[in-house]
Amino acid sequence: MADYLLGIDLGGTNIKIGCFDRELNLISKTSVPTGSEMSPEAIVEKFYATSNDLLSDNGLSLDKVCAVGVGVPGIVDVNTGVVMACPNLPLFRQVPLKDMVSKRMGKPAIIENDANVACWAEYVNGAGKEVDHMIMLTLGTGIGGGIICDGRLIHGPTGGAAELGHMIIELDGRPCGCGQKGCVEAYASASSTAARATEAVEGGAKSTLTAILKENGEITCKDVFDHANNGDKLTKDIIEGTCKALGLICVQLANIFDPQTIIFAGGMIAAGDAFLNQIRHYFKQYIGGLYQKGSLKICFATQGEDAGIIGASSLALTA
Amino acid sequence: MADYLLGIDLGGTNIKIGCFDRELNLISKTSVPTGSEMSPEAIVEKFYATSNDLLSDNGLSLDKVCAVGVGVPGIVDVNTGVVMACPNLPLFRQVPLKDMVSKRMGKPAIIENDANVACWAEYVNGAGKEVDHMIMLTLGTGIGGGIICDGRLIHGPTGGAAELGHMIIELDGRPCGCGQKGCVEAYASASSTAARATEAVEGGAKSTLTAILKENGEITCKDVFDHANNGDKLTKDIIEGTCKALGLICVQLANIFDPQTIIFAGGMIAAGDAFLNQIRHYFKQYIGGLYQKGSLKICFATQGEDAGIIGASSLALTA
Repeated sequence: MADYLLGIDLGGTNIKIGCFDRELNLISKTSVPTGSEMSPEAIVEKFYATSNDLLSDNGLSLDKVCAVGVGVPGIVDVNTGVVMACPNLPLFRQVPLKDMVSKRMGKPAIIENDANVACWAEYVNGAGKEVDHMIMLTLGTGIGGGIICDGRLIHGPTGGAAELGHMIIELDGRPCGCGQKGCVEAYASASSTAARATEAVEGGAKSTLTAILKENGEITCKDVFDHANNGDKLTKDIIEGTCKALGLICVQLANIFDPQTIIFAGGMIAAGDAFLNQIRHYFKQYIGGLYQKGSLKICFATQGEDAGIIGASSLALTA
Repeated sequence: MADYLLGIDLGGTNIKIGCFDRELNLISKTSVPTGSEMSPEAIVEKFYATSNDLLSDNGLSLDKVCAVGVGVPGIVDVNTGVVMACPNLPLFRQVPLKDMVSKRMGKPAIIENDANVACWAEYVNGAGKEVDHMIMLTLGTGIGGGIICDGRLIHGPTGGAAELGHMIIELDGRPCGCGQKGCVEAYASASSTAARATEAVEGGAKSTLTAILKENGEITCKDVFDHANNGDKLTKDIIEGTCKALGLICVQLANIFDPQTIIFAGGMIAAGDAFLNQIRHYFKQYIGGLYQKGSLKICFATQGEDAGIIGASSLALTA
């Protein structure tokens, strides 16, 4: 009987594939490098070969797999299974990936945006397991979003919804790569947090980061958090700005969705409870008296690096 | 056969009741006064008596009605049919209105927040008839919101979603009745537009409204639009502020939902196309390059004062 699921996490530099049973227990996983120059056909062929290797290493075969889910780092029309565009995989434009995967693997397939996949992983297996209304924000180079409302991912008509990183927090504020100004992504992503610190140091602000910039030629987000922990005033202010921005976004989302849980994910959550508590602090400050029930839980994701393959496997069940 | 629907629009000063056929053609409608001091029991009794009068005036009776929908000006838990609270009907706290109506009328009933009901009316019969992803903002004393995503109203777990008037557009901005600061409602509702004009005039700004304030003791939102049309500089600036705020909210909602249509409703839409075009202008300015497809339609509601009974009747079909 076909008792297993394959979850594929397609990234700009790696393809991760996990094999799970129907209860989402991980059987085995693997990762192979990819390249931004690879064609969709070559990538689907890599899905097929790598999946076969993974399965046979575990005494299984594709016969035992009931469906395949794929997370894609771009805009996906889930109705048609077409990848509209992927910033980091330029050859993926208007690619009918669902049909291609389904045909090559000989299985029902489902294609989904990677931020939505990670959000779904938290919903079925992580910090959102107990709720039906949750939102996830992934803090990385940009800020990705996923929204689950009444147990369903929100896609919009063509997969363009949940672009939460492009909510504007300051009119005519910092320019964002998207063409807007003042997006939360331009302040509070890992990259933008580092960029704001770099700009301040380059502008002559007093900070222990000055030496880091001189030595390494750059300041990372981790540097900012490390130096804040060591008492550096400037970096504390920079992080406060990040937390204010994220607290404000939580207020906006609370008013729009009244979610039970807002989950933060991505490398920045390594900053730990002090970071989380500062976001909660500004949420409470900005929400004023409105949120009297105070039931909204703001927390960190729990599914880590496997979120992509877990979420994709779970979504495969709906293929 | 039970071929008719009753739609009830409960307001702070009136109860409107409409009888419709299953294709939402209006058979007849009526309106009776209510009062904020009325008990839920008395109001349900009024629903019953008024509905019977309306039906018998049209040669019908409750036997011919298959279901009843009620729009309520407050927070409604649609899962339980309980009205949690109504600002303008203080005796409505934790009232199991759905059960009360269903029992008294002897029909299946559905209870829904009035902004959601009006939004649903546009969805089934008005400016959102051709789409499945739409948002409505009602500009009145406050700003009410309704969101339809993939053909479903968004409620949140207990009816607290779609509080779009309380999206913050300016951190630490104008105080709002909700306890937050900087809500769009505090800038761009009809009342707040009038209030900003009043404050400017009282602060000594030069405007033809100065005479109005002296004469009438107050400035209304209609005054602001009238004087802007007559070339008054201050009031033009005030309206520009309102349109900027609403354009910004459209950008936020476009990024979150990627809706096909955003609809404005309420008395302020009497200001007409110049007002609408100015909102569109700021939407386009703030959305930058992101919304390349440019497919979002921003328009006015078409269902007017009957939206409440139309939407409630249509929702009754799902009771």
